Amino acid sequence: MISDAIDKLKALLGDRLNQSISDRNLHGQSESHFATTPPDAVAYPTSTDEVRAIVEICHQHSCPIIGWGTGTSLEGHTLAVRGGVTVDFARMTAVLEVSPQDMTVRIQPGVTREALNEELRATGLFFPVDPGANASLGGMAATRASGTTAGYDLTGLFVGSEGTLGLITELTLRLQGQPEAISAGVCSFDTINQAVAAVIDTIQMGLPMARIEFIDAATVAAVNQYSSAGLPELPHLLVEFHGSEAGVAEQSETFGLIVAEHDAHDFKWATQAEDRSALWKMRHTAYYAVLASHPGAGAMVTDICVPISKLADAVEQTSAEINQSSIAGPIMGHVGDGNFHAILMIDPEKPDDLKTAKDLSERMVTRALEMGGTATGEHGIGVGKLDYMAREHGHGWTVMSSIKRALDPQDIMNQNHPGAARA
Amino acid sequence: MISDAIDKLKALLGDRLNQSISDRNLHGQSESHFATTPPDAVAYPTSTDEVRAIVEICHQHSCPIIGWGTGTSLEGHTLAVRGGVTVDFARMTAVLEVSPQDMTVRIQPGVTREALNEELRATGLFFPVDPGANASLGGMAATRASGTTAGYDLTGLFVGSEGTLGLITELTLRLQGQPEAISAGVCSFDTINQAVAAVIDTIQMGLPMARIEFIDAATVAAVNQYSSAGLPELPHLLVEFHGSEAGVAEQSETFGLIVAEHDAHDFKWATQAEDRSALWKMRHTAYYAVLASHPGAGAMVTDICVPISKLADAVEQTSAEINQSSIAGPIMGHVGDGNFHAILMIDPEKPDDLKTAKDLSERMVTRALEMGGTATGEHGIGVGKLDYMAREHGHGWTVMSSIKRALDPQDIMNQNHPGAARA
Repeated sequence: MISDAIDKLKALLGDRLNQSISDRNLHGQSESHFATTPPDAVAYPTSTDEVRAIVEICHQHSCPIIGWGTGTSLEGHTLAVRGGVTVDFARMTAVLEVSPQDMTVRIQPGVTREALNEELRATGLFFPVDPGANASLGGMAATRASGTTAGYDLTGLFVGSEGTLGLITELTLRLQGQPEAISAGVCSFDTINQAVAAVIDTIQMGLPMARIEFIDAATVAAVNQYSSAGLPELPHLLVEFHGSEAGVAEQSETFGLIVAEHDAHDFKWATQAEDRSALWKMRHTAYYAVLASHPGAGAMVTDICVPISKLADAVEQTSAEINQSSIAGPIMGHVGDGNFHAILMIDPEKPDDLKTAKDLSERMVTRALEMGGTATGEHGIGVGKLDYMAREHGHGWTVMSSIKRALDPQDIMNQNHPGAARA
Repeated sequence: MISDAIDKLKALLGDRLNQSISDRNLHGQSESHFATTPPDAVAYPTSTDEVRAIVEICHQHSCPIIGWGTGTSLEGHTLAVRGGVTVDFARMTAVLEVSPQDMTVRIQPGVTREALNEELRATGLFFPVDPGANASLGGMAATRASGTTAGYDLTGLFVGSEGTLGLITELTLRLQGQPEAISAGVCSFDTINQAVAAVIDTIQMGLPMARIEFIDAATVAAVNQYSSAGLPELPHLLVEFHGSEAGVAEQSETFGLIVAEHDAHDFKWATQAEDRSALWKMRHTAYYAVLASHPGAGAMVTDICVPISKLADAVEQTSAEINQSSIAGPIMGHVGDGNFHAILMIDPEKPDDLKTAKDLSERMVTRALEMGGTATGEHGIGVGKLDYMAREHGHGWTVMSSIKRALDPQDIMNQNHPGAARA
């Protein structure tokens, strides 16, 4: 069966399928004490489509497949113990897209750590993970180098599974030391765009914000009324830094310089616990302030998340659409993540309001997906966002459905899972 | 079928199974715009064993199960759209174990964020994640609040799956800004225990180390010979801080005070690129230095990871065992993670060396698992650590096996997967 697969792979790849003894032995070696265990052939694909074709052929003929980056793993990960085909990513080494504003890079798996950082040097950015060897990034991801969990990350799989895979009966949480000093700040801007641009610059400077929140002018109006905050009715940023006395002082000062470049007004700092507490209480009660400003009305609280580079556009376009609609919808968000909420107000005596809110939410989701974002920022899927998952994840949603069926064959764990129809 | 399940649940839980309309309606509500959708009953378990029994009964009778923390989710996560039983964790609110040295806490899922931080106040630690509501930690974990990925974390599942679930053909990596200033330091200690205690204190102070590395006296001896490092033959720490000029200066000074409390010697700082580069080159070549110090010998490089509170014991016991054996085995490690390696030297002309090395590695793994650690720190499973996975993960290994079968039914993707026999 392996030989059938190899015949087809030869037709697909030509001389990029290597069966020489030297190349097979090279790919059967390990940097540690394991004996050489060569595959039957080594494939050198040049594209994702070719890799997909290789996997399909191997699947048809039950031929084992082993991925290969630079071969620096130490526990015999790439030994071909059942023979088969080693897929060497040496010809997939392109840096596809550097996104300085999002501080991300999209690459092919054969790029090595040192090559990537060399490529990034002029951008002022770097990729910090260093397992020691000059490994390929694909290999580092496949082996979680340097990470410290053996096996599939079941914790990560269950976190965010919304009760669809099982119930959590115990948790171990990582804690932080209470900071020596905390400094919180607030400032306003004439435009949403200026506020978000200031956030992006702050992230890019590497300033370690404990939190940064955005509230729009409509939210400020509600908050002023609810808790006499006395803020100018403009878009605001609220920020907090944790650290040493000197550290938070320096960070606050740097943040002040950044927002000044974006024409911030009314920049104030609070280092006293009572003042900080008042600031965050104002943010935490903003939802209730908005509700109180529309007596008798209910709310659809929706959220999306977009790459940070798209955040100003997403907030501005959403804000414009809400302003053109017949309902109110103040906006607030955890902007450091590219995440924001609209609180869409629904008057129970106006039958069109719910439909208007649903349409606005639908357009927010569509915009988020078009911008490379996600249909739900932090509120999750529930039954409210279930219908968007197939559109967001494509084949990934089918993969999630396979996992769901494997772990809950009776389909009893909650209802908002991959493959479920919305109620 | 649901009614059969409820009869059995009543027998199991007595009056901790509530079928009153008021309680069912309470658990059918949402904080957002969704209509009330009550379950058939609400269960109030008090232990993991009871939750397991509830799930088994529901599984037998295909009765839907919905987990419930505080009911603050916003997308209708807990609506009982198919009826069934809501499992309310209100009676599982114990803080089971605070581990100040490891900076972790083990809790039951009903503990709320505010209750947890109140409980932790005297320890100087806190749990920083704040989704706005005073949610239960179980609910926050189940819904990944506040996180920003919709659906099962397939990226996290594939990262570390070692090619057993698929091949990675493209990656998007998060980058960091190149730091304004870097400061690197080195110091020595009389004992391993002192060095590790200094690391624990540094972590607990919240000093943001870019990296911290431990090398033992044997490694220093090899490095001195290989690159004329001229270091005292004692256990050493190497550390690096990234940040602003003032920030790294302050961090370096604080680190100096911490290691002084643990009687560090020869504390030196390097802020110049050449000096730092020499320091880390020395660390990066330590493996080759060790190989060069045993001409003709090969190496089994093994690694384990333990909770940081157990790290000093783990390193000392490992070191003692290696010293009592017939082979050399210098130790080095990324101690900030509780992770360390032994480079077990194997003379190809001494047939017993390989078995001695395997026995030492086996004892390291056994010790790590007994200490609540993992069989492999960062080197992964491969074929080298496959045999330990069932012991480490118990039923979790079976769960991983179900996922493997669901995503690779033909069993063609690599060989070191859950359920595979070692070659």
